[in-house]
Amino acid sequence: MSEIVKDTAERIRILQVQGARNVAIAAVKAIQTLAEKTRAKNKAAFLSELKEAQTIFVASRETEPLMRNAIRFINTKVQSAGTEKVAELSRLVFSAAEQFLTDLDTSREYISEIGAKRIHEGMVIFTHCHSSTVTRMIAKAKKQGKTFKVICTETRPAFQGRITAKELLDLGIETTFIVDSAARTFIGDADLVVVGADAITSEGNVVNKIGTSAIAVLAYEARKPFYAVSELLKFDPETLGGECEKIEQRNTVEIWSEAPSKLTLRNPAFDVTPNRYIHGLICEEGIIAPQAVVEVMRRRYPWIFLV
Amino acid sequence: MSEIVKDTAERIRILQVQGARNVAIAAVKAIQTLAEKTRAKNKAAFLSELKEAQTIFVASRETEPLMRNAIRFINTKVQSAGTEKVAELSRLVFSAAEQFLTDLDTSREYISEIGAKRIHEGMVIFTHCHSSTVTRMIAKAKKQGKTFKVICTETRPAFQGRITAKELLDLGIETTFIVDSAARTFIGDADLVVVGADAITSEGNVVNKIGTSAIAVLAYEARKPFYAVSELLKFDPETLGGECEKIEQRNTVEIWSEAPSKLTLRNPAFDVTPNRYIHGLICEEGIIAPQAVVEVMRRRYPWIFLV
Amino acid sequence: MSEIVKDTAERIRILQVQGARNVAIAAVKAIQTLAEKTRAKNKAAFLSELKEAQTIFVASRETEPLMRNAIRFINTKVQSAGTEKVAELSRLVFSAAEQFLTDLDTSREYISEIGAKRIHEGMVIFTHCHSSTVTRMIAKAKKQGKTFKVICTETRPAFQGRITAKELLDLGIETTFIVDSAARTFIGDADLVVVGADAITSEGNVVNKIGTSAIAVLAYEARKPFYAVSELLKFDPETLGGECEKIEQRNTVEIWSEAPSKLTLRNPAFDVTPNRYIHGLICEEGIIAPQAVVEVMRRRYPWIFLV
Amino acid sequence: MSEIVKDTAERIRILQVQGARNVAIAAVKAIQTLAEKTRAKNKAAFLSELKEAQTIFVASRETEPLMRNAIRFINTKVQSAGTEKVAELSRLVFSAAEQFLTDLDTSREYISEIGAKRIHEGMVIFTHCHSSTVTRMIAKAKKQGKTFKVICTETRPAFQGRITAKELLDLGIETTFIVDSAARTFIGDADLVVVGADAITSEGNVVNKIGTSAIAVLAYEARKPFYAVSELLKFDPETLGGECEKIEQRNTVEIWSEAPSKLTLRNPAFDVTPNRYIHGLICEEGIIAPQAVVEVMRRRYPWIFLV
Amino acid sequence: MSEIVKDTAERIRILQVQGARNVAIAAVKAIQTLAEKTRAKNKAAFLSELKEAQTIFVASRETEPLMRNAIRFINTKVQSAGTEKVAELSRLVFSAAEQFLTDLDTSREYISEIGAKRIHEGMVIFTHCHSSTVTRMIAKAKKQGKTFKVICTETRPAFQGRITAKELLDLGIETTFIVDSAARTFIGDADLVVVGADAITSEGNVVNKIGTSAIAVLAYEARKPFYAVSELLKFDPETLGGECEKIEQRNTVEIWSEAPSKLTLRNPAFDVTPNRYIHGLICEEGIIAPQAVVEVMRRRYPWIFLV
Amino acid sequence: MSEIVKDTAERIRILQVQGARNVAIAAVKAIQTLAEKTRAKNKAAFLSELKEAQTIFVASRETEPLMRNAIRFINTKVQSAGTEKVAELSRLVFSAAEQFLTDLDTSREYISEIGAKRIHEGMVIFTHCHSSTVTRMIAKAKKQGKTFKVICTETRPAFQGRITAKELLDLGIETTFIVDSAARTFIGDADLVVVGADAITSEGNVVNKIGTSAIAVLAYEARKPFYAVSELLKFDPETLGGECEKIEQRNTVEIWSEAPSKLTLRNPAFDVTPNRYIHGLICEEGIIAPQAVVEVMRRRYPWIFLV
Repeated sequence: MSEIVKDTAERIRILQVQGARNVAIAAVKAIQTLAEKTRAKNKAAFLSELKEAQTIFVASRETEPLMRNAIRFINTKVQSAGTEKVAELSRLVFSAAEQFLTDLDTSREYISEIGAKRIHEGMVIFTHCHSSTVTRMIAKAKKQGKTFKVICTETRPAFQGRITAKELLDLGIETTFIVDSAARTFIGDADLVVVGADAITSEGNVVNKIGTSAIAVLAYEARKPFYAVSELLKFDPETLGGECEKIEQRNTVEIWSEAPSKLTLRNPAFDVTPNRYIHGLICEEGIIAPQAVVEVMRRRYPWIFLV
Repeated sequence: MSEIVKDTAERIRILQVQGARNVAIAAVKAIQTLAEKTRAKNKAAFLSELKEAQTIFVASRETEPLMRNAIRFINTKVQSAGTEKVAELSRLVFSAAEQFLTDLDTSREYISEIGAKRIHEGMVIFTHCHSSTVTRMIAKAKKQGKTFKVICTETRPAFQGRITAKELLDLGIETTFIVDSAARTFIGDADLVVVGADAITSEGNVVNKIGTSAIAVLAYEARKPFYAVSELLKFDPETLGGECEKIEQRNTVEIWSEAPSKLTLRNPAFDVTPNRYIHGLICEEGIIAPQAVVEVMRRRYPWIFLV
Repeated sequence: MSEIVKDTAERIRILQVQGARNVAIAAVKAIQTLAEKTRAKNKAAFLSELKEAQTIFVASRETEPLMRNAIRFINTKVQSAGTEKVAELSRLVFSAAEQFLTDLDTSREYISEIGAKRIHEGMVIFTHCHSSTVTRMIAKAKKQGKTFKVICTETRPAFQGRITAKELLDLGIETTFIVDSAARTFIGDADLVVVGADAITSEGNVVNKIGTSAIAVLAYEARKPFYAVSELLKFDPETLGGECEKIEQRNTVEIWSEAPSKLTLRNPAFDVTPNRYIHGLICEEGIIAPQAVVEVMRRRYPWIFLV
Repeated sequence: MSEIVKDTAERIRILQVQGARNVAIAAVKAIQTLAEKTRAKNKAAFLSELKEAQTIFVASRETEPLMRNAIRFINTKVQSAGTEKVAELSRLVFSAAEQFLTDLDTSREYISEIGAKRIHEGMVIFTHCHSSTVTRMIAKAKKQGKTFKVICTETRPAFQGRITAKELLDLGIETTFIVDSAARTFIGDADLVVVGADAITSEGNVVNKIGTSAIAVLAYEARKPFYAVSELLKFDPETLGGECEKIEQRNTVEIWSEAPSKLTLRNPAFDVTPNRYIHGLICEEGIIAPQAVVEVMRRRYPWIFLV
Repeated sequence: MSEIVKDTAERIRILQVQGARNVAIAAVKAIQTLAEKTRAKNKAAFLSELKEAQTIFVASRETEPLMRNAIRFINTKVQSAGTEKVAELSRLVFSAAEQFLTDLDTSREYISEIGAKRIHEGMVIFTHCHSSTVTRMIAKAKKQGKTFKVICTETRPAFQGRITAKELLDLGIETTFIVDSAARTFIGDADLVVVGADAITSEGNVVNKIGTSAIAVLAYEARKPFYAVSELLKFDPETLGGECEKIEQRNTVEIWSEAPSKLTLRNPAFDVTPNRYIHGLICEEGIIAPQAVVEVMRRRYPWIFLV
Repeated sequence: MSEIVKDTAERIRILQVQGARNVAIAAVKAIQTLAEKTRAKNKAAFLSELKEAQTIFVASRETEPLMRNAIRFINTKVQSAGTEKVAELSRLVFSAAEQFLTDLDTSREYISEIGAKRIHEGMVIFTHCHSSTVTRMIAKAKKQGKTFKVICTETRPAFQGRITAKELLDLGIETTFIVDSAARTFIGDADLVVVGADAITSEGNVVNKIGTSAIAVLAYEARKPFYAVSELLKFDPETLGGECEKIEQRNTVEIWSEAPSKLTLRNPAFDVTPNRYIHGLICEEGIIAPQAVVEVMRRRYPWIFLV
């Protein structure tokens, strides 16, 4: 196995690579390198290498369906290719990888465009954690000349809200910053709630940073529209097959580095927002009800359901 | 004006004294000293000193009805006293202050006793922030030999949950510690939610540490009984007269000490939990529906309604 | 029977006198005149006249507990008086009537004062129909120099919202006017919902102009505080005894004067808002949870429960 | 100890005596006999006998606050009596017992009168289990000449709904009979839901036959008014002091007499309906919000709070 | 540009043509005329004329997706036609237009058939505003010999409910007529709530006459099934692309012709009912969950998504 | 007509055959026999026999869409067959029937596999009535070595819960057994609620044993995930066309064999759980939101929509 796969997987495992997109890109790049440097003699051997890489990456981090879908996409292409020649298969890996990443960029661009239409002059937007897709959508609205404000939470334990706040300030957007538990106090001032997603389940539930589902409940309580903004490629086909999306349990040092030794600390990275609290999914298909996601995936990404 | 009043008020203002009880005790002690050292020549002058102290303490910190009620109790006693002799009035201040503090202790003891009855063998209890009344109630149940677990939130920005966690561990109670925004994930494991209170309004709403009302909503969503544990002396009679309980806005450095200069930070110390989310108020009267609080106060503490 | 009673009752019946206060005042004045002109020879005869007047007024209009309480107050005073002299009893009617009306004024003044404290700079207030108590409370806030806006509904079928709108504009308040069924669209812009009351039941439900209960539901859906502003003397003690508050059915010509002959028109003047949708009752007692109303009445107006 | 106490307690224990009223009456009668036959030489000895009887009866069955309050009433009378003479105390027991039972009858009669006012011509009433107070209230409405229908559940496991159905048919009332789990299907046809109560807690929750709380939830879902009909003497003062109302666990043979041996059967006799699902409590005070119950009890039955 | 297009668009603009169907038909007819009279020399010129007509019609009135879809259908047909001959293209416009209108009729007929099956003997139906599709569905049930009643609201400000009432009476249906704000009082008597639609969004929300969403909330509160009855061709594909459905703001004279000059009047013609309050969409596909609408449209009307 | 069809239909009618699967299998087997023994001379005659059998089976029992779909599948195959030869058509009936039954088995096997993944170590599962699919899914989890508990209701009136309890005990699963109306008391102990289905409507509602919808409401109240476990072949295409799923009314002797003669007993076998209470449908497609069911059926079983 090419060292690049193991190294990349390790960097993913120890959180040197973070964010669903970055993790997917890193894995895809590593597999491209793997394919480029392969010494496999035939298709079977080549496929075996790809499978092994897949296994390593899948094991590197839970709650990363985008990465898993990226690898699934590449491997499916290779498996169904008409050729047996390794050189051609290697080029196919390269082109499939490029296509996946290009499609991902196109999706994100389109999502930010349609999402920006939901941001109107004078609005107050509420967000949680950091999502590059959400930031891009907000930036797009700003570039369109709209004036609006954003309230963002600090997002304990890793304070990703600080990244969001800095990015928004750099974009010249008036930003208010609060602790997570002040969400109920401030959500009444918001006109729109937008969050990213780390995974989308077959029932149309959204897995996102811990605290998201509470904000969804509070948005519901205050009749505020709550949207998840995400590429559909974060859909996890294994949930269709009965799996619960695995929730990564992060290092508890993030919460309290000098905690008493007998204390049990729990640090789940994500939670699950049920579809009934989600007004819509802003995705590359447009804005849809999350309950329809299975059929949209079947039509748009049929390969995702192939084993 | 005795320096002790100004000094104490200043210590309260800069958060050197914290917690509704401690603040009330500090103010009462200062007024005892003031009364002891008074040079007032007559009742009017003495009362004027007391009123001045009251004004200073009221200005020192918002959201402190317990302290305000303590002073109100003492001043009402002096005002309605039959004597004009300053020495007697001074002694009356002393005895009224002692009575108030003794009653407060008795209340807390009784509250912890009846609250402990709601903690049953094997339960999981969920709590937020730090409340000495809540800790005492939990400690009582532990001393009764019951085995149970507690989940407590860290309570950003000031991490009072760490104090709670340490106290619980010292009591030998198995404790789990989570970030505030993980409340929805873990509340499903709980059998009982208990929080303290900083103020109780005339409608039976409870003012408590920021984040409390969100936990109440999440407890409601999961059909978990949510109780506020508090001395009724935290009732704020001014809410009956139309005032909204003022919410102290704390220093935003607590949230992010090196925040970008253009960022607006908001740091309200408390929020308001509406009565409909509160299963009951565990107080010196017993366990009551919060909607009945006005009448309980009228019967039990009629002096609180005197101007 | 003095003609004044019959005439006044008739004017009430045909809606020449409108509004709970005006109806109560008219009835009280008529009874004062009756007492003044009485030819009764003894207490029994005098009481009999009063009872007859009571019967006539009660029959004149449904859903008028304030008027009924006013008469109840006067008659109770006479009944329990130590004297048998008609002249003295007649004077007692006069003074009791004056006391009732004075207390009513004092209550309204106090209600407007405490209610005004809930109106903060920059707020948007939502109201329905016309209530002199609500207008007075809003006017008070305006006189205190606060700037705020009001949204009011037209209040079909009788368009009382137009009266409210005119009064608010005369007070210099920025006012928005909408049809009743636009309430859900605009309630999201409001910070506070206030309505009057025609009757308060023993369970703490509020009877008010048709449409009020729907607004309460919509306020609840949008987490907007909904307050009923009313003198407690609109409490109807007969609801304690099991009666449902009778709902006046007005002339259907108000709805459609040239309706097809076969069409059934229904024109109830009021509806009932359940206590769970009411954040608080702003009344002469202060701001209270509606569920406590029975006990507040028992303490404050014990005579209302005497048969 | 008189045999009568032990025998009666045993009959209560083995369910030969059933229904809160019957149980209370049996215990009161036994205590009357005990007092009549006492050989106590002085007040202390007499009181000691009474206390012993109390202990025996309290142990005989859980969830019987009416019986406990009856004994509490008698013992409080004896304890606070001015005399030391046993013969007088014995007579006092007798008269207190009579007074308690008379008051209970008066309450029930008044409750049925005011409850009957809520039953209007043409209504459909939904009820669960068997409650003599509910039946009496329905009978009263029938006697007033009203025509209405009743839907009643069979009330597993003991089929008390059959008793209700027979009584209603005997009264000439059109009655529909369904299994418990058909409640959601039929509650949409109802205009009013009425149930009895076995205990009322200090928070205003109602303890009643298993299944009641589910019906309350379903009534709430369908916006149907749900009333508990009960003497306030079923209030349990121990809940004020922190106790949860104990829920009697009945013999599981009632559920399945030939159940497989390894099967765990659970047969709680009662459940708890939270105050927020209860439109009102129809009681001897009238129709009140359940949240006010503590204060109503303090005013009406102050002796119940004496230890 | 043919005058017919401008004239028709103007008649639409000034509300001389009303109702989604009528507006669509008028526009289609005008485009047929335009095509018939065209002097375009080639396909490009012809298409340019069609595009211009489209622009004019789109600008004539907001919230008219049916009209926009009709034009979209015709233009798509022309654009994708194999021929370059204007005469043929003109005939194609004609046939496409006919097809669209025929399909619309067929849809409506089918909708009324399946909708009528939901109307059962003895039911009470609640409706709001006027919808020819709803009336037709009710008429169908009547023709099937079913006896039922309808409650309809007057629908301020334009009183379209009066049209509905007259049509229903003409059909021999027992009809009750109420003001809009009496909806909560009367919805409890209903078994079924049906409304039309002016637009359907990609999330499955329904845009309909102002007041509809409040009725949906009230139907939900009372567990009454709420159905939107509409051709799927009112689906607005632009909502998929992020647009909020524009809500037409009508002339405020409709509300109050002699309003005080300083009064702000707001007269939105429509509101948005969220999918979670909608039991089903009764449409040409059958009765479906609104959340599935995007996929149903993709399968049934793929041309609607072409730019 | 072959006697086998009539006999089988009769056995279905009198409940000798029970359970959606068993009923479908019996009907399919009978039709196989019918086809085998046919004396039809041509396709038309053969089809006529099949249609007659269909009519007889449809009439035998309401609420049996699985059986109806089975027959629909076979008849559609025959109708669209290229041959006119009866012998071939007879063989086609046989093979279509085998295919249907095989697919049904495969579906059930797959459903139990994916459903079992939702059962985690240590869970408590709540179920109602008896469903072979649910039992199989639970059995699968048990075979995977997981330890968990099940709470099941007795399911009046026919006590199908006893069958479930026995099957679970036989599988070695710790089982608790309660009366139906104890559901609200015990659902708080559950981690997962699973029920079967007798029919699925086009809106994604689930028709299942009476009591199911109440359990869904109670699961919702307690935030417990509620899943329906069912083959999609229980989808009823007639609901798409406007029909309400017919609810079988069973013999009332089941409820009370010696009921008073004047008593009206109602014994609906099923109720309808609205899609908003259903977290997901566990079916042969995987776990999906019920709102998507129409599109899933269109893609997966297009023949079901053919008339």
